[in-house]
Amino acid sequence: MTVESIVSDMAKAAKVASREMAKCPTLQKNAMLLKLADLIQENAINIQQENARDVIEAEKSGLSAAMIDRLTITDATIQSMMGGLREVAALEDPVGASIRSFRRPNGLEVSRVRIPLGVIGIIYESRPNVTIDAAALCLKSGNAVILRGGSEAHNSNQVLAALIARALLETGLPGESAQVIPVRDRSAVTTLLQQEEWIDLIIPRGGESLIRFVVENSRIPVLKHYKGVCHVYVDKGADFDMAEKICFNAKVQRPGVCNAMETLLVHENAAPDFLPQVAKKLTSAGVELRGCQKTCRILPQAKMATEADWPAEYLNLTLAVKVVSCMDEAMKHIAVYGSSHTDAIVTQDYERARRFVREVDSSVVLVNASTRFNDGNQMGLGAEIGISTTKLHAFGPMGLEELTTTKFVVFGDGQVRS
Amino acid sequence: MTVESIVSDMAKAAKVASREMAKCPTLQKNAMLLKLADLIQENAINIQQENARDVIEAEKSGLSAAMIDRLTITDATIQSMMGGLREVAALEDPVGASIRSFRRPNGLEVSRVRIPLGVIGIIYESRPNVTIDAAALCLKSGNAVILRGGSEAHNSNQVLAALIARALLETGLPGESAQVIPVRDRSAVTTLLQQEEWIDLIIPRGGESLIRFVVENSRIPVLKHYKGVCHVYVDKGADFDMAEKICFNAKVQRPGVCNAMETLLVHENAAPDFLPQVAKKLTSAGVELRGCQKTCRILPQAKMATEADWPAEYLNLTLAVKVVSCMDEAMKHIAVYGSSHTDAIVTQDYERARRFVREVDSSVVLVNASTRFNDGNQMGLGAEIGISTTKLHAFGPMGLEELTTTKFVVFGDGQVRS
Repeated sequence: MTVESIVSDMAKAAKVASREMAKCPTLQKNAMLLKLADLIQENAINIQQENARDVIEAEKSGLSAAMIDRLTITDATIQSMMGGLREVAALEDPVGASIRSFRRPNGLEVSRVRIPLGVIGIIYESRPNVTIDAAALCLKSGNAVILRGGSEAHNSNQVLAALIARALLETGLPGESAQVIPVRDRSAVTTLLQQEEWIDLIIPRGGESLIRFVVENSRIPVLKHYKGVCHVYVDKGADFDMAEKICFNAKVQRPGVCNAMETLLVHENAAPDFLPQVAKKLTSAGVELRGCQKTCRILPQAKMATEADWPAEYLNLTLAVKVVSCMDEAMKHIAVYGSSHTDAIVTQDYERARRFVREVDSSVVLVNASTRFNDGNQMGLGAEIGISTTKLHAFGPMGLEELTTTKFVVFGDGQVRS
Repeated sequence: MTVESIVSDMAKAAKVASREMAKCPTLQKNAMLLKLADLIQENAINIQQENARDVIEAEKSGLSAAMIDRLTITDATIQSMMGGLREVAALEDPVGASIRSFRRPNGLEVSRVRIPLGVIGIIYESRPNVTIDAAALCLKSGNAVILRGGSEAHNSNQVLAALIARALLETGLPGESAQVIPVRDRSAVTTLLQQEEWIDLIIPRGGESLIRFVVENSRIPVLKHYKGVCHVYVDKGADFDMAEKICFNAKVQRPGVCNAMETLLVHENAAPDFLPQVAKKLTSAGVELRGCQKTCRILPQAKMATEADWPAEYLNLTLAVKVVSCMDEAMKHIAVYGSSHTDAIVTQDYERARRFVREVDSSVVLVNASTRFNDGNQMGLGAEIGISTTKLHAFGPMGLEELTTTKFVVFGDGQVRS
């Protein structure tokens, strides 16, 4: 069989299975998730053996230590996959909920009811635990899912796929509801992205180049974010101790993630006192500062920033710093260089807080809180499948509800239109 | 200037204007819509003169009578545009509404607030009143809009565009918030569909070939429906008089629209009595019947249907009729040949009503009511910008809310993530 026919057969089978998943009661879906957690526990040794084969191959082929770290399934990874499954089983099922319901003047009873999207394709890189995490969310929300992990995690993903299929079949659900593409060839991805007749949504998870490849090649709608260039704007009159705490947390607590701060904007009235205070704290944690001219005048230790620093997603302990003459300049900077991901203001001013929240066009806008809170769990959605900076369908962290849509259900007594 | 630079400059200007529209108070948007209604009234003669130029040219170039009918701006069209504007002004503004709001355990106050999508591109055919109707909905929901009408309506659309710009400017809003592409060349459409940096959503309105062209050429998300192949399934034990009334309304009341019935499915127990009853009523209104073998045995006047009839969107007084042995066969037929648009069951059975509603995967599913109710106004959304059979973002009729998305707004007191 060719790669094309393997992948398109999988997509067709997923569509058929999705009809079963769509009407599956919550209890049965939960039983399947808990069964899968048990199977992972029972088969931990086998999973780790298969994973070791991937790791050895990755080491031979010279993958970076960071990539190998993400590829490795440790005991903690096993525990985290199991914990994730039990957590998703405990989340409320969005399917069947009515988001609005009313009676029309002619007596028709109209409601908008949540239904699954259908078939979701997930394309991701090295971390094999995504296979479990993403499948759990798609299945709980009543969808079928096709997973395509990185070829470096091939053996790990195949053993996990077999366990998912077992959990599905042992709880009376179609095994094709969650399938992992068994082909390592990259043409499998290109083929997957052409199955618009069978697949309803593609979610890529990984670096910017993977995501751009998916967007450029997909005929299916894609939910994604390219990068997180997140800002904190420290207003004049801000509480400097609060601002310091927020900036430190946003930059240093986990610098390698998309909701970490990449650029600090400071009002010129606050800069002379605040910049030395925050710089001391940040540099003590190893942060390298790249400042505009005004910043460098106040902070001699800062390097001069270039134009390339303002749109940069460093994902490390580098921070761009700019002094602005007013909040409008800060908001304009965010509009030009930001990524619609996460932006925060630290202020004590009522009107500027309101304006910032209203006018900054990002998926999460915060007042007096760290950018690190842009996360499905922190925003009260439960587990998340990703963050969208595309406005259509979902903007911001995506949980179970974002994997559904609504249809109109109408109950009548013979009404016709006049 | 080239077509490319004209269109891309319009898109960029729309993006800038969209920031003003996004923060514009409802009262100002309403004032603009009412001003536009007044301007249309004052300039009715001028509009009809420009329209007459289009009509004369269309007649010369041999456009069909139906096309010319749709192109012509009558006194009634003028009234309908004005009425539509006043109706949209009276609708509730979705922008700024919080769809959910809660306090997190750490004290963060999180809400999901409706915001405009940004810039919407509308691509449509002959009817010039769409210029006004679509602009009204996009602007009321805080978006900027770029309109591209059919080249046959060029002069009509240009005079309407000038009035929209006047209404915007006279009420203090940026004139670039609603722009009509002044170029007749089709390459303008292709260029528009590539402006993914500035345009957030494309809505095509027109025939299937226009919509397929847009989908194939767009890098921007598209909300659309190709066609409406709508079914009515008459169950065994249904109230035949009710079923007759619903079938007649669904087929005959306005056969040329997407929510009209194209295929009638009848349970084999109901067929011997119901088919002759409904056939008599339908044929008296000029409906031509094309039936499956069983149908033709009961109705000698029916033509034999071919495979091409089942997925057909006739948009006229033709009806395909099929006798099914059970509801599962009916639902399978809908799954195979339907268009996820609108499907109805006529039944007195509680369990089958529930199953039909749950398992039929269409944007509007009705029990004991005509398919003709799939319409934004009838479903309580106010005016509609179109109907989507794509599940992502909006499924079914799209009103003002469907032209918005939500962002997360977070108010804190210095919270950081631990």
